Amino acid sequence: MKKHVLSVLVENNSGVLSRIAGLFTRRGYNIDSLSVGTTENPKISRMTISVLEDESTLEQIRKQLNKLVPVIKVVRLEGDRSIYRELVMIKVGAGVEDRSSIIDIANIFRGNVVDVSSESVVVEMTGDSNKISGLLEMLKPFGIIEIVRTGLTGIQRGYGSIGE
Amino acid sequence: MKKHVLSVLVENNSGVLSRIAGLFTRRGYNIDSLSVGTTENPKISRMTISVLEDESTLEQIRKQLNKLVPVIKVVRLEGDRSIYRELVMIKVGAGVEDRSSIIDIANIFRGNVVDVSSESVVVEMTGDSNKISGLLEMLKPFGIIEIVRTGLTGIQRGYGSIGE
Repeated sequence: MKKHVLSVLVENNSGVLSRIAGLFTRRGYNIDSLSVGTTENPKISRMTISVLEDESTLEQIRKQLNKLVPVIKVVRLEGDRSIYRELVMIKVGAGVEDRSSIIDIANIFRGNVVDVSSESVVVEMTGDSNKISGLLEMLKPFGIIEIVRTGLTGIQRGYGSIGE
Repeated sequence: MKKHVLSVLVENNSGVLSRIAGLFTRRGYNIDSLSVGTTENPKISRMTISVLEDESTLEQIRKQLNKLVPVIKVVRLEGDRSIYRELVMIKVGAGVEDRSSIIDIANIFRGNVVDVSSESVVVEMTGDSNKISGLLEMLKPFGIIEIVRTGLTGIQRGYGSIGE
């Protein structure tokens, strides 16, 4: 099963997340990640849902989502015609002697060091899943203390918006 | 009402999001943003929930979350002892003549241009809400076509993890 990404415009109200999450749970659809943020219109939020399902299940999910009243529009993002990004912050154990190696790694991955203490460093980076895995691999030897990730978000390349 | 941020470790299963979202809907708690991603342990996900509620309601929310079986731990992130970030991608209308101005703005905000077409540019940036508002303000005159945001994520400064 491949990863598919849906971009969903929804009304910005307190019930919409639970209705969408409830749909996925009841039907047993497999959510790989979900992120939600406000849009240029404060009454509308935009969710990016990444699912691990086959084509026919994906089509079902689209139909079911479209039936929900607070759902305004569902668009499938296509691999090479869209840009996918996730934000990750990784805290690693690091004394003074490790700091410059970690800064070098952060620079190679175009990440930023956003916190330093006597025993730790936090690296922030954005990228697709492969780039994030790569950074994690490089930081593992220092000892990963914790990771926070936002879940995937995505936008179509070129002019035009999914709201049209 | 102030914005408060909870970092929540949960079991990584399909029902957990709908249970948590359902709790917020039923009780009418006001979710400002929610992001969820995997952690260093594939069985555990970490959610960052930002809520607009007063202190006493926040305490209720913590208690209610702790009662849910798939919830492993709830930690409140404190303002100056934590780092907050959100990822945003903003698509603006831009012909060749506007491109270099937009690239300049992206650089000032330490953002990146991640897509260019003959009529549009996509700028990616990470930051807190204030920085994102600042970038949006600067890009507005070019005509914002669409915005995707991941929702807020956060991590405590210094050594130590919420899982301890």
